[in-house]
Amino acid sequence: MQDHFIHFETSGFKLLTSFFRKQRYRSYVILVDENTLTKCLPRLITAAPLLKEAAIIETESGETSKAIEVATNIWRTLSDLQADRSTLFINLGGGVLTDLGGFCASLYKRGIPFIHIPTTLLAMADASVGGKTAIDLDHLKNAVGNFSRPEAVFVDFDFLLTLPERQINNGLAEIYKMALIRDAKLWKNFNESAIEDLIFRSIQHKIQIVKKDPSDKDLRKILNFGHTLGHAVEGLSLAKGRDVLHGEAVVAGMIMEAHISFAKRLLSKNEYLEIVKRLTERFAFVSLEGITSEEIQHALVNDKKSSAGTLNFSLLEGIGACKWDQKVNWSLCEKAIIEYKRLSHG
Amino acid sequence: MQDHFIHFETSGFKLLTSFFRKQRYRSYVILVDENTLTKCLPRLITAAPLLKEAAIIETESGETSKAIEVATNIWRTLSDLQADRSTLFINLGGGVLTDLGGFCASLYKRGIPFIHIPTTLLAMADASVGGKTAIDLDHLKNAVGNFSRPEAVFVDFDFLLTLPERQINNGLAEIYKMALIRDAKLWKNFNESAIEDLIFRSIQHKIQIVKKDPSDKDLRKILNFGHTLGHAVEGLSLAKGRDVLHGEAVVAGMIMEAHISFAKRLLSKNEYLEIVKRLTERFAFVSLEGITSEEIQHALVNDKKSSAGTLNFSLLEGIGACKWDQKVNWSLCEKAIIEYKRLSHG
Repeated sequence: MQDHFIHFETSGFKLLTSFFRKQRYRSYVILVDENTLTKCLPRLITAAPLLKEAAIIETESGETSKAIEVATNIWRTLSDLQADRSTLFINLGGGVLTDLGGFCASLYKRGIPFIHIPTTLLAMADASVGGKTAIDLDHLKNAVGNFSRPEAVFVDFDFLLTLPERQINNGLAEIYKMALIRDAKLWKNFNESAIEDLIFRSIQHKIQIVKKDPSDKDLRKILNFGHTLGHAVEGLSLAKGRDVLHGEAVVAGMIMEAHISFAKRLLSKNEYLEIVKRLTERFAFVSLEGITSEEIQHALVNDKKSSAGTLNFSLLEGIGACKWDQKVNWSLCEKAIIEYKRLSHG
Repeated sequence: MQDHFIHFETSGFKLLTSFFRKQRYRSYVILVDENTLTKCLPRLITAAPLLKEAAIIETESGETSKAIEVATNIWRTLSDLQADRSTLFINLGGGVLTDLGGFCASLYKRGIPFIHIPTTLLAMADASVGGKTAIDLDHLKNAVGNFSRPEAVFVDFDFLLTLPERQINNGLAEIYKMALIRDAKLWKNFNESAIEDLIFRSIQHKIQIVKKDPSDKDLRKILNFGHTLGHAVEGLSLAKGRDVLHGEAVVAGMIMEAHISFAKRLLSKNEYLEIVKRLTERFAFVSLEGITSEEIQHALVNDKKSSAGTLNFSLLEGIGACKWDQKVNWSLCEKAIIEYKRLSHG
């Protein structure tokens, strides 16, 4: 891997323990959720026994933990623990946890060092790389956050074995996205059984993109393909108490935004139909039942990517290529939503 | 001024209006407190009429506003206003307000542009320069924050005329500190009637220091002289509902930390006595009545500057020079506190 701070291994955490030996932190804090507490933490502590002394902070899994109240409680706990800049904050979990934990660590005492140990496919292939942190504001996804890079990321493929199928699909959605925006070959020869290779390629693309544009000024925006309508669907579904995962909403977003790309003649009809076919065969539809167009429109206007009141999208320019800062009229979004609803009832 | 992004003027805000013309923000939000709302905002809007359309967010003056609940409300208001990266967030106020407003703007949607228009001497000479933002966590000063630079700082000396004497003293305390850590000549010829010159020199020093060490790794730590015990005193006084200003607590901190410097033989007895004489003649004592040594010790251990459980101070090495990362035993702190109490009763 080009980037020295991302380490891959299978079983053992040898690189992690040598990192600990080199850095000599005074104390360790590990953020877990109820899943990683039982399924991942024991293995981690066996591999790195000096973590036996670590303080454990437990948070609930799921998007609702990305809340300011949860962050504030973590800060209070850090203060009670007398954590400081000689403390290493370890995020052991999926994308929700690494977003939340990175946010807390990067702001506590103006920043204490943190690392990510991603335990889901989504976090390995996407969330743990790129240095974004965030919490949600009410139901606005990632409304508050920053750009803050972990000291290192340790990917251990063994954690994939702990995941249910739904969590694997959640991560695959982002890898399909990477193929669509950046890698036509990967899209063509997408081999789900070679999952370690998929993770490698996804991270490689992401590092290249983030290096060129760390703070989302231009190129990095292509990563938002599927995420503008996807975030709206995700936020509104969660607000209605529905159980939807990020990757599931992103698949819905990609299908709708591919329709917009087609409507704007950036994508051919054949390419659009191929994307719909592949994605709908592979992934379940997200129900938009009871979610109104007005609600989606309101969420889009409040999206980070919108600017000066106009809707900004990253759209496909053929399979494997993506253009950012594409202005889109609301009427085109509405058509894409109607088409998605039609497909899901068809 | 060496740094192009700090602008000085007296009456008129010509530089500010030309900045607005150049940058072409889509919308403006102004954060004020009840004082700057009535005393400063009208003058600002007269000078820059395009701010008539700006949304006004009002917060209460005083340290208690540097709270996560206040920040969260500001984020909700920004979301209601559909603020985005084409919105300019303007902080019109003192150090509390620029700390809070910088914090909110730098994290909202992972950062929208902001400027400071400092209205107090403290904010002009110190707080608005250097790119630190923060809120407090319960009574831990600046426990949560980041390094985030405003687009520009506009200093208009006319605002000094709106300030009561206590606020002027509040700012002078930080300028005395700058003299003690960096500028023996300034300490010797401190001319309070040449206040604009004091501001210039203070900012010049601060910019030099911050340029060499933006993120508090080494040199910048000298700015913490007086602030380790000062923050403890400030936090504990506020927790007890007492009305104490930052500069007042910092003067108490400087006297105590000068005593530690003397006890560690970094400062001669004559220099120590000169510092005590000048500062106690000029500033009132802060009451430590009812604040126990244990409370102060607990606050020190939780201070950002402490590390690995040891107390770290920036101490004077003669007048005009300062050494950072000086380990200090608690017993020396306690002696300094007792001596301060003795002086204040004497």
